[in-house]
Amino acid sequence: MRFDIISVLPDLLESPFAHSILQRAQKKGIAEIIVHNLRDYSTNKQKSVDDYPYGGGSGMVMSIPPFARCIEQLKTEREYDEVIFMSPDGVTFNQTIANELSGKGNVIILCGHYKGIDQRIRDLFVTREISIGDYVLSGGELPAAVLVDAIVRLIPGVLNDETSALSDSFQGELLDAPVYTRPADWNGHKVPDVLLSGHELKINEWRHEQALLRTQQRRPDLLED
Amino acid sequence: MRFDIISVLPDLLESPFAHSILQRAQKKGIAEIIVHNLRDYSTNKQKSVDDYPYGGGSGMVMSIPPFARCIEQLKTEREYDEVIFMSPDGVTFNQTIANELSGKGNVIILCGHYKGIDQRIRDLFVTREISIGDYVLSGGELPAAVLVDAIVRLIPGVLNDETSALSDSFQGELLDAPVYTRPADWNGHKVPDVLLSGHELKINEWRHEQALLRTQQRRPDLLED
Repeated sequence: MRFDIISVLPDLLESPFAHSILQRAQKKGIAEIIVHNLRDYSTNKQKSVDDYPYGGGSGMVMSIPPFARCIEQLKTEREYDEVIFMSPDGVTFNQTIANELSGKGNVIILCGHYKGIDQRIRDLFVTREISIGDYVLSGGELPAAVLVDAIVRLIPGVLNDETSALSDSFQGELLDAPVYTRPADWNGHKVPDVLLSGHELKINEWRHEQALLRTQQRRPDLLED
Repeated sequence: MRFDIISVLPDLLESPFAHSILQRAQKKGIAEIIVHNLRDYSTNKQKSVDDYPYGGGSGMVMSIPPFARCIEQLKTEREYDEVIFMSPDGVTFNQTIANELSGKGNVIILCGHYKGIDQRIRDLFVTREISIGDYVLSGGELPAAVLVDAIVRLIPGVLNDETSALSDSFQGELLDAPVYTRPADWNGHKVPDVLLSGHELKINEWRHEQALLRTQQRRPDLLED
């Protein structure tokens, strides 16, 4: 799977894509993540990518031409399944969307900044608008990294243990049960006896009960669907 | 405001904290963001921070001692308002929580990995568990960066234009209206006439209508509260 991310702050994304699972996926050749500097597609001397909003108001608006030029250039090189704009106005990202997107081939992701991007970019180029949650961030770079991380780990061959992604929270309908590791007694705080019992059936029962209890207490909405 | 982030992958967080608003806030002395390498607090020769889960199952569990040592060390140096664990099981992060946390002084953020952290860390040290959304990520680092970004931009003095953060999506109850900038005509795609009219009252009316319309279409849930 290939991700082309268009950003005015490409350096911000350097370290998240150079570590952990995203690094491994790229080394294995399973994912390609290319960050494009939007300023390289500006044609004026100042390499500007934004301008004042029509109708007045505070903040700058990212203008059409640099985005258009970059997207059109990429589209001459290969076909894209989606052009995603990271935006607080978008559909709220969740594991179902992550699963769906992990089956795509080539995806462009646009990162916004300032007060937003010219609406015509959204109308003319964007196929999907995604929000990672109901909060305001400085730009679309961290949301893009979150999106890519959530998707890439689902692509077969990326995680060492294939069952691992499937047993995560949200892949089933329940939150995870509590987990424990050594020491069995830490300053008097002990691991539940059942986990030390070696009785697999009881352990599975306990885990299911705990997962259900935690979901009821913390996220009853997940049980309603 | 001071953030102490405890992570097994501190390098992953390098570039997000070195750019944009987070960089500016640190240079201005308004925010301090320190990332601690959890492995520095491991006492065994392998610098390991995880171990097999009690009761069996796939994946590793992050163990108590390194986290406990790091947190206890930090607590001898200053008082902390919160110890936050980034977790898909947590309360879903939103702008209200961001506003509240932007009024805090010192905050510790724990980043989990693998199949999770020993439940006793959560029971004994964590004051708050926060999820940035209903999706699974490789670790708590990107969520920690998202949290810090959303909070820091709300601290007075961080944004150049103080009104800017207040007029963002989610600070009111409506999504933002569409924005436009030059050119007024791009390949035949024009800016709405009203925005070129210079009639401030009409522009404000149009923007309110558009914001309402967009919210009704995309996020009717925001209007229900």
